[in-house]
Amino acid sequence: MSKALVQAGVIIIGNEILSGRTQDTNVIHLADKLNNWGIKIAETRIIPDIEEVIVETVRHFSATWDYVFTTGGIGPTHDDITAACIAKAFNKNLVEHPEIVALIQSRPVEPEVMKSRLLMARVPEGAGLIENPSGGPQGFFIENVYVMAGIPRVMQAMLSTLENQLEGGLKVLSRSVTGYLGESEIATDLGALQVKHPEVDIGSYPFSRDGNYGTTLVIRGTDAAILDHLLKVICELIQIAGASPEDIQHG
Amino acid sequence: MSKALVQAGVIIIGNEILSGRTQDTNVIHLADKLNNWGIKIAETRIIPDIEEVIVETVRHFSATWDYVFTTGGIGPTHDDITAACIAKAFNKNLVEHPEIVALIQSRPVEPEVMKSRLLMARVPEGAGLIENPSGGPQGFFIENVYVMAGIPRVMQAMLSTLENQLEGGLKVLSRSVTGYLGESEIATDLGALQVKHPEVDIGSYPFSRDGNYGTTLVIRGTDAAILDHLLKVICELIQIAGASPEDIQHG
Repeated sequence: MSKALVQAGVIIIGNEILSGRTQDTNVIHLADKLNNWGIKIAETRIIPDIEEVIVETVRHFSATWDYVFTTGGIGPTHDDITAACIAKAFNKNLVEHPEIVALIQSRPVEPEVMKSRLLMARVPEGAGLIENPSGGPQGFFIENVYVMAGIPRVMQAMLSTLENQLEGGLKVLSRSVTGYLGESEIATDLGALQVKHPEVDIGSYPFSRDGNYGTTLVIRGTDAAILDHLLKVICELIQIAGASPEDIQHG
Repeated sequence: MSKALVQAGVIIIGNEILSGRTQDTNVIHLADKLNNWGIKIAETRIIPDIEEVIVETVRHFSATWDYVFTTGGIGPTHDDITAACIAKAFNKNLVEHPEIVALIQSRPVEPEVMKSRLLMARVPEGAGLIENPSGGPQGFFIENVYVMAGIPRVMQAMLSTLENQLEGGLKVLSRSVTGYLGESEIATDLGALQVKHPEVDIGSYPFSRDGNYGTTLVIRGTDAAILDHLLKVICELIQIAGASPEDIQHG
């Protein structure tokens, strides 16, 4: 029997995101996939490569959410401290995993380079592996924390292998519709609709495109029939306000 | 006299980012601008539109960092709860700010729509305003918390007005260089270099581009002479490993 709502916390470990050097794209990819698997992201934190911050955040998230996903910091250089921090968070020793060692050693290199590569074989004692179809060393999981690479292509490959390993709950569905009108023009009715239907989240997202102001209304919930009904009501509201409902999407 | 290091926390308030509907671009813009003004982002949290989460995060960040920047949730609809939450975080009443009221009332609309628009005039009692060159209602600040819109164009306009209002510290500078080699090939020397120079952060960021693996090395610190010296050392390391130092950048 699946839980009504399964929630995840995401931890992006990376000075390069905080410093503005790199545009994060892992959050949106994780959200998209996890939603499809019935797992809702409840909070995301982008934190620096600082041991005590990583340890504290992992402990807090692991105790708070059903699942925790981390990206970044599992390479072979001095700034890759994620595996050691996760081990510390769970009071485990950091050990070489024989399967990762075997994979790394199957590609001969000079001893000095091999020594560095083998740093990527270290996982907290008792951790399971996350396969890595992109070809590099595996990620790992311990308890409810899943530890993946920061490079989007590698993270995506690792995540794809988890689809049938994670237990999702009710899937959050969505309906959205856009009207070229200001938010204020339907704000009152929309607020009343939200009060009447606390079982869904109605979001209002204004934008400007080619100099025209518009608003996208998004209804999220787990009951498709209610979403379809509310979509119709909101389309009516848009028409009453003198605009046309456009770009209707079912998600 | 400026503080040695001025640090900020960023709070992205938005279900639409957590659900994967919208790709966040506010974090990278904030990081880029704030770095230039001598303010370093220490942590970013992406949180949902839930009152207690917003209130708690704002209180914690305000007490922890020199500056806090929030984006999102200051529109006129039921899901725009940021202003009320910030007021609650500081135990202030939520009041209409006369300058925002004047701006909104200068554009006549029917009474129902005006009533909704005036919701955007509400700020915590005693808050100062953040001008909005994009033309809409202002943002606001209270104590060390700066509250801006979520729409990137509007957030960027608001942020631009703060350049001379915020007191930055030492600016974090960077040097970066790319080599087409694996991280492991210079990991040991790089680690030794980091140990010798704890006053800088040396980051190693692997990537694959058109099927070729490479690594970008980034040195961050506040002393340009040390960065220039370490850049030369790292270029040497790349050459010793048999690759060429490419795409050298000074930031």
